[in-house]
Amino acid sequence: MVGVRGFRFAGVAAGLKAKGGPDIGLMVAERACPAAAVFTRNRVAAAPVGLSKAALVKARGRARGVVVNSGNANALTGPAGVRDARRMQAAAGEAVGAPVGTMLVASTGVIGVPLPMERVEAGIADAAARLSPGGFGDFARAILTTDRSAKVAEREVAGGARLIGCTKGAGMIAPNMATTLTFAVTDAQVTPVVLKRLLAEACAPTFNAIAVDGDTSTNDMILVLASGAGPRARAAALGAALADLLDDLARQLMRGGEGVHHVVTVAVRGARSAAAARRVARAVAVSPLVKTAIAGADPNFGRILAAAGNAGVPLRPDRLTLDVDDVPIVRGGVPIDDPDREVKARAVMQRAEYVIALDLGLGSARAQYLACDLSHEYVSINADYRT
Amino acid sequence: MVGVRGFRFAGVAAGLKAKGGPDIGLMVAERACPAAAVFTRNRVAAAPVGLSKAALVKARGRARGVVVNSGNANALTGPAGVRDARRMQAAAGEAVGAPVGTMLVASTGVIGVPLPMERVEAGIADAAARLSPGGFGDFARAILTTDRSAKVAEREVAGGARLIGCTKGAGMIAPNMATTLTFAVTDAQVTPVVLKRLLAEACAPTFNAIAVDGDTSTNDMILVLASGAGPRARAAALGAALADLLDDLARQLMRGGEGVHHVVTVAVRGARSAAAARRVARAVAVSPLVKTAIAGADPNFGRILAAAGNAGVPLRPDRLTLDVDDVPIVRGGVPIDDPDREVKARAVMQRAEYVIALDLGLGSARAQYLACDLSHEYVSINADYRT
Repeated sequence: MVGVRGFRFAGVAAGLKAKGGPDIGLMVAERACPAAAVFTRNRVAAAPVGLSKAALVKARGRARGVVVNSGNANALTGPAGVRDARRMQAAAGEAVGAPVGTMLVASTGVIGVPLPMERVEAGIADAAARLSPGGFGDFARAILTTDRSAKVAEREVAGGARLIGCTKGAGMIAPNMATTLTFAVTDAQVTPVVLKRLLAEACAPTFNAIAVDGDTSTNDMILVLASGAGPRARAAALGAALADLLDDLARQLMRGGEGVHHVVTVAVRGARSAAAARRVARAVAVSPLVKTAIAGADPNFGRILAAAGNAGVPLRPDRLTLDVDDVPIVRGGVPIDDPDREVKARAVMQRAEYVIALDLGLGSARAQYLACDLSHEYVSINADYRT
Repeated sequence: MVGVRGFRFAGVAAGLKAKGGPDIGLMVAERACPAAAVFTRNRVAAAPVGLSKAALVKARGRARGVVVNSGNANALTGPAGVRDARRMQAAAGEAVGAPVGTMLVASTGVIGVPLPMERVEAGIADAAARLSPGGFGDFARAILTTDRSAKVAEREVAGGARLIGCTKGAGMIAPNMATTLTFAVTDAQVTPVVLKRLLAEACAPTFNAIAVDGDTSTNDMILVLASGAGPRARAAALGAALADLLDDLARQLMRGGEGVHHVVTVAVRGARSAAAARRVARAVAVSPLVKTAIAGADPNFGRILAAAGNAGVPLRPDRLTLDVDDVPIVRGGVPIDDPDREVKARAVMQRAEYVIALDLGLGSARAQYLACDLSHEYVSINADYRT
């Protein structure tokens, strides 16, 4: 993948992953530039999350780059973990000749194990020596843990700027609380304040609306850097491209998850507010009973409507309308009277991607969530992997 | 099981269940007596839920009895379903010679299918003809759907009153949103107001603190009737006996679930408030990653603490303490330095019942939740049962 003006990238193997492969990624701008990030809300956040959050605030939404390691999450590692995250930040700053406070840090991998700092520091020096404008693919591979392949995407921003990104994590499917890490860079000229708003808006319907199992990890982070080496971008154009890029990456993340055979869009409309629509969509998307029905291609409308009823949002059962792609299932809260209804719905649910459309009949607000199946592989991967 | 003074019971087969067996249960007091109930909070509640709730309010916490059918939930059945629930209520009132409004109705079974009212009404007449003081076992069997056996319990109330109860449902494990129905009767003398309070208090740590998959059904109901044919009961004594009975029934429900091999008490202490403790306990108990770790007997402390971190409650990671039964796992937010830690923890997690004890180190409030494993059988039962 062609890079983006103003950035260099690298990915190297430092011996952090038991199975080998690249595990230190480095991404650096020519100078400190606008940066925006969204961090996990988990209260047991890992050391690098706290460090990067504080660094971004202190530098008023600017950063020079990020160093990422896979193979070890530096989570639940106590005060020693905080020191290690600082050492990673310092090593990266030194290696690329940047003020220490301008480098951010992200980690993913096993929890509760101290980072092997000698290897990490040697890896950072190695990565710095290999930085190149075309190294994005190496970076994207270095952040992977149990993912089967790298997940990258690129978009043109109307007006001529470019945007590229990568992600890892397979949601929370993999062992050890697989973390979602997402990095994007653009050469667009944009202010830190606007970039922060655009990222928040782009995350809401994408990475903040995917439901593998409803958990968020100790290390989740989405970071976007804007070098300004390209043209000025209209905020709306950059925002649209960013949302599109993140949607692409989020879907790749879902599809790439081991044990995932169906990626289902739960689209809720007719709600009294967007927040209500979102709560209902999420309740349906995370319901284990709905997810096992998706796995079994079972058009079990009772589970879907009952999950909606659990969202804590006032509903009128007699107003509910449910479709699976183009197959009507429920009208006015009761199943439609069509003897072929189940056969047709079952055919839709064999598809790799389809839409569960729920109309609450109460208003005009809408929201959607991405759901996937809860399959035997999910249980195998998460219950049996060490037995 | 010996009955309780002032009540007669029956359970008969009316042909509602595809697989046969008793499917109409009837429970009647000699006269209208104090009654208290807790209903599902699902906004897509079934017709009998709305009917029974309104009847109890109208009669100011008194009822003559309840008619229950299994095999059909009368949920998502529209206005016809409401009419059918009323017809069940009327048929039961006529059959036992009680004013119509004093009979309550409960249903469990398939969703979205009209009740076969001829069979239901014939079954109610049949049940009324067979009412007897010793018929509680028949009643307990008539409310079952996919449960493998009846679940009953009895307690003596200090002071001489008796309390018996039964439940069905296997949580939400079974196909078609298996409903939890629980019925208890006592001969204690107690007012409707006190009975209502005692039931609410007894539900909080028992049926409102079990987590199979976090969903609640369209039809859930817990009902207790007090005939007053026995001695006056001190409220505290009756409350303690009721909580103990419901705890027994809730554990039977969990253990009896298909696909459940481990019933785990998630005990949270050291919280700033009982509400916070409860949120953390619930977050751990419903986490699919924790539940698959339970299934795999995998002492994955990272998943447990990360699930706690997702509860939306402020935590101090460095204060966290975690034990599995008597095996210490985490102190001060980091895993303890014991090479045998994992072997010891794994041994505990082979047990059918054990305790995950989490101390937040922030206060003195506590709460607990019952969790179970997310196993291959869960997926098989819920995904594959019609394929």
